[in-house]
Amino acid sequence: MNIYADNAATTSVSRTALEAMMPCFKEMYGNPSSLYGLGQKAKEIVEAAREDVAAVIHAAPREITFTSGGSEADNQAIRSAAAAGKKEGKMHIISTAFEHHAVLHTLNKLEQEGYDITLLDVHEDGLVRPEELEEAICQDTALVTIMYANNEIGTIQPIRKLGEICRKHGVTFHTDAVQAVGHVPIDVEKDNIDMLSASAHKFHGPKGTGFLYVRKGVRLYNLIEGGAQERGKRAGTENVAGIAGMAAALKEAARDMEVNRDRLIRQRDLLIRELGKIPHSAINGDPVNRLPGNVNFCFEGIEGESLLLLLDDRGIQASSGSACTSGSLDPSHVLLAIGRVHDVAHGSLRLSLGENITEEETWYIVRSVKEVVEYLRSFSPIWRDLMAGKGEFILP
Amino acid sequence: MNIYADNAATTSVSRTALEAMMPCFKEMYGNPSSLYGLGQKAKEIVEAAREDVAAVIHAAPREITFTSGGSEADNQAIRSAAAAGKKEGKMHIISTAFEHHAVLHTLNKLEQEGYDITLLDVHEDGLVRPEELEEAICQDTALVTIMYANNEIGTIQPIRKLGEICRKHGVTFHTDAVQAVGHVPIDVEKDNIDMLSASAHKFHGPKGTGFLYVRKGVRLYNLIEGGAQERGKRAGTENVAGIAGMAAALKEAARDMEVNRDRLIRQRDLLIRELGKIPHSAINGDPVNRLPGNVNFCFEGIEGESLLLLLDDRGIQASSGSACTSGSLDPSHVLLAIGRVHDVAHGSLRLSLGENITEEETWYIVRSVKEVVEYLRSFSPIWRDLMAGKGEFILP
Repeated sequence: MNIYADNAATTSVSRTALEAMMPCFKEMYGNPSSLYGLGQKAKEIVEAAREDVAAVIHAAPREITFTSGGSEADNQAIRSAAAAGKKEGKMHIISTAFEHHAVLHTLNKLEQEGYDITLLDVHEDGLVRPEELEEAICQDTALVTIMYANNEIGTIQPIRKLGEICRKHGVTFHTDAVQAVGHVPIDVEKDNIDMLSASAHKFHGPKGTGFLYVRKGVRLYNLIEGGAQERGKRAGTENVAGIAGMAAALKEAARDMEVNRDRLIRQRDLLIRELGKIPHSAINGDPVNRLPGNVNFCFEGIEGESLLLLLDDRGIQASSGSACTSGSLDPSHVLLAIGRVHDVAHGSLRLSLGENITEEETWYIVRSVKEVVEYLRSFSPIWRDLMAGKGEFILP
Repeated sequence: MNIYADNAATTSVSRTALEAMMPCFKEMYGNPSSLYGLGQKAKEIVEAAREDVAAVIHAAPREITFTSGGSEADNQAIRSAAAAGKKEGKMHIISTAFEHHAVLHTLNKLEQEGYDITLLDVHEDGLVRPEELEEAICQDTALVTIMYANNEIGTIQPIRKLGEICRKHGVTFHTDAVQAVGHVPIDVEKDNIDMLSASAHKFHGPKGTGFLYVRKGVRLYNLIEGGAQERGKRAGTENVAGIAGMAAALKEAARDMEVNRDRLIRQRDLLIRELGKIPHSAINGDPVNRLPGNVNFCFEGIEGESLLLLLDDRGIQASSGSACTSGSLDPSHVLLAIGRVHDVAHGSLRLSLGENITEEETWYIVRSVKEVVEYLRSFSPIWRDLMAGKGEFILP
């Protein structure tokens, strides 16, 4: 059996997306900035894609700026709001400790440049408390940036409420929605979102393309200077094929969202229930307010990396945390942020299910994880010590 | 007849490039940062592409950073060298007045931030004089950035000599080689280049991908912060398909370069000779030190835009200048930089030939341009005045 359960890292490109891309590589290869027919056709493809993308999140087409992906969108949004704030003498930014590194590392840089950064607690359930956001906002606050859904533990923030608080205090609200777009319904109007980042390859579009939503009236500065593409806000010849593929994938994801969600939630909850029966294990993050396909567990006494490799041997592709940080030996900053201690955070497993997963496959995952965890514990010195009564279990 | 003669704006994706990309959309869709087999396969594709790209410009693989295109590479290179310079108290940058806007607009921003910018004269032939570069270099010079080949008039700078001067004075030398890579032989070692930007869609690779060469020992700072991709220097999930397509296209371009160059130069020189026979016309830039496929003319008394549209009607796709600035009504900054007056600069035509152009097609272009120029002049009031002896011709 082969089960790709790492859809939070990346997804396969859907047939629909690929079909939308192919003509852009072949006959429709013009530069959208060119005056002649071939160029104008490419421009039409880009503008039609902009309409499709905008419609899915209830935005206007001119509020969508295409980027090379979620990281670029995050960088541009945060840098823009920071620069706009500075002009008004506002140099305070609020975020959380468990954001994606595209956000956290940008905030680190801004801190070095003199900005004041407040990171809200995400509590044990992986959720921000709206009242704590409101307390943190001050006269100097230029930006609140809180991710829509976490990339590791999948918890979905009370975005509408957070946005409402920002709106009330006149603070720009950005959300990194890379994991959420295409998976849960998003309405930038009702959700009070000013800026939103998304990435195509998280919803069966191609890698190397994404978008940034910026509400009309919110100032956007360039991260990449140059030509007049994207209304002068993002230079560089448009990735026409990528943009077309992204729009097609997103339209499809929106169309099938309800059906997919129901199926995913059923399989997710089955996994949460069954894996929770493994002794000294714990689910990470709120079990209900989370992405439909996200399951994230800690198992005491094992190393996440070995767990992954043995699951791969059994045909299950999963991860211990974010793919973006897999080169690092440090435990996940997300798990530390929700209060997991170092040793426990090391034994984590993220399963992010694909829309077509069957119940049979889910049970195969359950059996495999149980067996592999048991096997790894059988020769773990930490586990043996714990079983021998030396030291205390952290997880019940 | 249909002749795409705007290959400087963008090129069609080659079959070889597309064949390299397809598996990355389909079965090899893993995230290169993922530990399991599917992810590692994607990583192998990216690293093999890095080797191929590096080999073509005589660099080491670890000196190649993949970006979303030429504009991003230019921005990152210049911002990096500027930041590195600032740390040593060096805030002077030398460039030319006819760089791509990805360079010029970045320099504008740096000027606002307190940097001192010197733009060298490119003279009437579109070429920088090495001795003028040497004169401009001072103790404070942090960076020299001069494009390899101009995107409008195609003139190729004496890069090796310019690089030699920079090396002698210990100044970092960056070149925007977006128009040159894949078209003329480049050797970063012999050419004394420290940083070089390139874009895949200019050599039959896909749009939305490019690379930045950075010599070992030259400091590179992030433009996009986030995950640890590209040795921590460029965050965001790698555009695996785009990277694979770029490498395949570049390898092919390098393999066929000599044959293509010979054919292109023959057709280019035929066009230069024949279009030069049109009265009151002039070639822009040096006729010899230019890209194999680039022909750029000014025709007195006409508007470039009308010329393009009528050529499009005859199946010829061309441009008046850079595609990136086509939204603007201002005449080309490149033509102004080489001393063309406003009125003459408005009547420009850039033909950038494709490798497969035939002599028959070239003659078709010659006839079409002659006829269209004549037709447009027949009802141009400026032209009628000139013919009636009111005012003087600027072009002989």
